Amino acid sequence: MIERIAILGTGLLGTSAGLALRAAGFRGTITGWNRGAEGGQAALKMGAIDSIAPEALQAARESQVVLLAVPIYATLDWMEKLAGVLGPEHLVTDVGSTKAQITAAAGRLYNTPERAAFLPGHPMAGKERGGAALGDAELFRGAVWLFTDDPSWQRSPHSAALVKGWREWVAAMGSKTIDLDAARHDELVGWVSHLPQFVATALSALLEEEVGDAPELKDVGGRALREMTRLGASPYSMWRDIAYTNTANVEAALLGLEQRLAHLRENLRTAALREEFEQANRFRRE
Amino acid sequence: MIERIAILGTGLLGTSAGLALRAAGFRGTITGWNRGAEGGQAALKMGAIDSIAPEALQAARESQVVLLAVPIYATLDWMEKLAGVLGPEHLVTDVGSTKAQITAAAGRLYNTPERAAFLPGHPMAGKERGGAALGDAELFRGAVWLFTDDPSWQRSPHSAALVKGWREWVAAMGSKTIDLDAARHDELVGWVSHLPQFVATALSALLEEEVGDAPELKDVGGRALREMTRLGASPYSMWRDIAYTNTANVEAALLGLEQRLAHLRENLRTAALREEFEQANRFRRE
Repeated sequence: MIERIAILGTGLLGTSAGLALRAAGFRGTITGWNRGAEGGQAALKMGAIDSIAPEALQAARESQVVLLAVPIYATLDWMEKLAGVLGPEHLVTDVGSTKAQITAAAGRLYNTPERAAFLPGHPMAGKERGGAALGDAELFRGAVWLFTDDPSWQRSPHSAALVKGWREWVAAMGSKTIDLDAARHDELVGWVSHLPQFVATALSALLEEEVGDAPELKDVGGRALREMTRLGASPYSMWRDIAYTNTANVEAALLGLEQRLAHLRENLRTAALREEFEQANRFRRE
Repeated sequence: MIERIAILGTGLLGTSAGLALRAAGFRGTITGWNRGAEGGQAALKMGAIDSIAPEALQAARESQVVLLAVPIYATLDWMEKLAGVLGPEHLVTDVGSTKAQITAAAGRLYNTPERAAFLPGHPMAGKERGGAALGDAELFRGAVWLFTDDPSWQRSPHSAALVKGWREWVAAMGSKTIDLDAARHDELVGWVSHLPQFVATALSALLEEEVGDAPELKDVGGRALREMTRLGASPYSMWRDIAYTNTANVEAALLGLEQRLAHLRENLRTAALREEFEQANRFRRE
């Protein structure tokens, strides 16, 4: 029943969603809007969108589903603007990496029988570099797509049907969906997604200081070093909003790792080192 | 001119060396010895060795080149035993991950015109799990193989020729060789190899505590989490000797990362976060 989708933000995730929808058999229209003209043109050329909308609010009004694929603060801005012009014939959903503020805004601005529906979403997929040109129809295959829907929200039957329809397209793109509440979501991704990123950033920054002046020595680390620092290429622009909107959880995760590293450092020659390796082995058991 | 090689220890590295030598065109004999019978049989079946030696010292005496592919303390033990039974017609070399103690022993026990030559070596290649069954003729291709030879050593022309010959086989296996002194080697690998391992171990152990009871949530982290914790599968038995023989360098590297993580944690909402990301980006510039 979903036949008209507007994608606001045709970066890596927005472009990949358009391509994945097409690959999954979506035959309706996909209109794109992007802040920079280049990203919109690239998405259009790749076939991720059918047309570039001159005006985002107009494109949203003419669609049934609006996918916000922009950074977190930009998502919050769009949520405010769209709430005033959309109604129960619309569903807005997003791909933001933290969900507390977005889910709170969704409860305040959406999700009554008279208003548009909002389904807070977060595909656990990405690359260490962004942009439409890296868009990939397979990006979401095998990934988890998290939702932080709130059971207390009261939606019209039409809104509820749009939510169900979007979930079906997410599954068709190859993702496994998991539902969490927003607080648990932000805590969990703090551990399994944000902590790994900040560790890779800190490790890469430290190694740039230690061996950055001897590029031939970077090769010495081989595959293991490349893997552990791949995310070091991630740009600040992708992570600033995450650091701002999940600060307490990221702080707790970083402090936890600092303590764990100190424990390991103090026990390089004791039996506690064996215990740390065995505990780590359990995390990686097949 | 090298026609008889003995590999002591047919685990992952010893077996891979045998396979890589064959793939590179080595036509001489390769005799293997392994502490456990199973590893020797597996290496034999895979074609990494021609025969299993009933007795390691005898096999070493009958070869020209002895490759020690065992943990660091076992390498030091074999160096003592072999020094008494080999002469200038022999070269012993190794694959140990730390080089200060091994290079010191080589100076004490080898490398005079009357004694066997010893060439301390360290291929920067491996897997997060060991064993002959994972042996791979391509393991060393594209990897760096470090040597910590000492220019003050006085070798017979025959010994020098064996050293040159082994270096040529290492290059033929696809490795790029780099020469460092032992102290610089241990400092460098402390940063680019040992630190990444201990970080992966600490991160995996921490996450096992935080989300280990909810296996479905491990999937949430996706590719980034899998990469950042792959080395968490590395067994203590492979890393104990490294922790013992490179303690000060690993301690310094761990402390450096702890401080870097604390700096990042204290600056999640300041301009310093941007600087950390940009410094990390420089490490990963193409």
